[in-house]
Amino acid sequence: MEKDSEFIKNENVPGPTKEEIRCLVVCKSKVSKNDDVVDIGCGTGGITVEMAKRAKNLIAIDKSPKAIETTLKNLKKFKLEDKVKLIENDALNALKNINSIDIAIIGGSGNDLEEIIETIDKKINKNGRIIVTAILLETKVQAISKLKKLGYTTEFIEVNIAKGQNIQRGTIIFGQNPIAIITAVK
Amino acid sequence: MEKDSEFIKNENVPGPTKEEIRCLVVCKSKVSKNDDVVDIGCGTGGITVEMAKRAKNLIAIDKSPKAIETTLKNLKKFKLEDKVKLIENDALNALKNINSIDIAIIGGSGNDLEEIIETIDKKINKNGRIIVTAILLETKVQAISKLKKLGYTTEFIEVNIAKGQNIQRGTIIFGQNPIAIITAVK
Amino acid sequence: MEKDSEFIKNENVPGPTKEEIRCLVVCKSKVSKNDDVVDIGCGTGGITVEMAKRAKNLIAIDKSPKAIETTLKNLKKFKLEDKVKLIENDALNALKNINSIDIAIIGGSGNDLEEIIETIDKKINKNGRIIVTAILLETKVQAISKLKKLGYTTEFIEVNIAKGQNIQRGTIIFGQNPIAIITAVK
Amino acid sequence: MEKDSEFIKNENVPGPTKEEIRCLVVCKSKVSKNDDVVDIGCGTGGITVEMAKRAKNLIAIDKSPKAIETTLKNLKKFKLEDKVKLIENDALNALKNINSIDIAIIGGSGNDLEEIIETIDKKINKNGRIIVTAILLETKVQAISKLKKLGYTTEFIEVNIAKGQNIQRGTIIFGQNPIAIITAVK
Repeated sequence: MEKDSEFIKNENVPGPTKEEIRCLVVCKSKVSKNDDVVDIGCGTGGITVEMAKRAKNLIAIDKSPKAIETTLKNLKKFKLEDKVKLIENDALNALKNINSIDIAIIGGSGNDLEEIIETIDKKINKNGRIIVTAILLETKVQAISKLKKLGYTTEFIEVNIAKGQNIQRGTIIFGQNPIAIITAVK
Repeated sequence: MEKDSEFIKNENVPGPTKEEIRCLVVCKSKVSKNDDVVDIGCGTGGITVEMAKRAKNLIAIDKSPKAIETTLKNLKKFKLEDKVKLIENDALNALKNINSIDIAIIGGSGNDLEEIIETIDKKINKNGRIIVTAILLETKVQAISKLKKLGYTTEFIEVNIAKGQNIQRGTIIFGQNPIAIITAVK
Repeated sequence: MEKDSEFIKNENVPGPTKEEIRCLVVCKSKVSKNDDVVDIGCGTGGITVEMAKRAKNLIAIDKSPKAIETTLKNLKKFKLEDKVKLIENDALNALKNINSIDIAIIGGSGNDLEEIIETIDKKINKNGRIIVTAILLETKVQAISKLKKLGYTTEFIEVNIAKGQNIQRGTIIFGQNPIAIITAVK
Repeated sequence: MEKDSEFIKNENVPGPTKEEIRCLVVCKSKVSKNDDVVDIGCGTGGITVEMAKRAKNLIAIDKSPKAIETTLKNLKKFKLEDKVKLIENDALNALKNINSIDIAIIGGSGNDLEEIIETIDKKINKNGRIIVTAILLETKVQAISKLKKLGYTTEFIEVNIAKGQNIQRGTIIFGQNPIAIITAVK
């Protein structure tokens, strides 16, 4: 897993998703060399980079031009740009032209989470997995509720990581924001 | 419990201790109108204010002039300055002239934690309580170890609070830094 | 705050609410000797006992006979039974005959959370406070959403407490289940 | 990552290490097909299985015969027994005959943590990594302190995972015990 500090950042783009969360998303996704991955709301490209390393190929979507630009910079830094198609558009429009999905990661969904999940559900391959990362309380409930209605088995984890920083007198512990990871399989 | 935002702050002084931690410290201390309290490393005065409201009287100690100044401002804001004696000195020197302690709160101890605990132990009244709040990993272990050696029964809790913030799209959850509260009674 | 181990328990009744959560609920409620308190879903009586100590009087409601029985035992143990009226009924029925509420604590709400909040809202006194403790993800969102619609200012905290246990080799840390505390004022 | 429920358990053996912790340990270890791994205090074999899948080969050590037996059962279940050598002995004795270590995972160390780290330090290959998982407060500090003294750069994370469980009324959230993961490289 790349260190958070390795990513090129843009002050107007959220992310990168913290190392430990990227690690857990990769694990939960069970990504392999056979998987077509869609990364919705790619932001800085933290998840994009990690999934691109491990997948067959990846489509990263963000409606923000600065996010697409930043993700591209990071893909180039890690020499992964050949494996990734970037789409600067909102998720629902971008999904129209995507036909094979083994894994969908939803990190940003604007107000369209339910429709995005419905659209993915129609296109997802057998044994596909949907992963939603959520920092809003309402998104957590909405994701679980929608995925259950569509017949998915869901797993919900809430992750609180605190990180030590060495100072002269010892190890001071800093909290990170809690993030939920919802994993759905049919 | 006063809101965090009610306290006057100084950029060079840590604190105030977050509302929920102040609340737990007050509970664990079992402070009452009969108690003489010593607050070591008072910083902004968050704990000082809450304990002063509930105790017989309180002595607040900090070696930083800016901390003493900020604590005084907050005591005045909450009209508690008459109940509190402020000492600008390091804890070991300040403790020399203190003879009655029912509750000692140790929020900052420089490198003197063990000696501070030993000194308090010699002066503490029957049924007294020592509370250590710790953000350094090493302080947690040192406090428990020293207090046990001196015959105290200790309780250790690690507190992780995350707080919601209303944004247009819902409730975003922000983590706070974890803090340990060690409570010791003999 | 009473220790968790001080409460009489019944294997069919949830609770008592852990000491640290009781402490935070008491703080957030700003309970005083002038307050009429309603405790909905009193369970073992953990919150009931703490609020009864500090309020003018308290009505505790639970539809489970065993919960009412256990709460009564605990009130007697702490000599608080004279201050508390116990109602064995579902919350909506019980609330019909209650006319003064300064503080409502909702710890258990069956499937009626929204209606319970609406009913309390009609009866609550000026400067009243509603506190919801929630362990279900859906309850957290429902409480915030309903309270906001009724014009309340809400505060949301998620509390993770871990507790040390002394074993021969050191201090082993056990996690508790996370609980949200939603505090609403108008 | 295998599900926790996939592992064969023995009531006298701790573990398996929870899925999310196994996932983070694998990430932090940066294990690859070139790595010789030593797993100290293998317990149920949770970490052993995950590391064995990804390493060149692995030596698992535990002084408890039941732990070795349980780990072997799990290795057989996942068809990994050919890649793993099991040693039923205390760590210091077992390490005497081990000469190549790229990654050492220390999950259980009895009272010998410092000596174990010293011994590993003498044998570890260039670019090797030491990972300590700790549930005791004292182990966390001891590991960081010893590793720093030996010249390692350490990273400390404290992991709190809470897991949702679907019940009829929604998603109830259960906390897990916090675990620290200390990662050291030279």
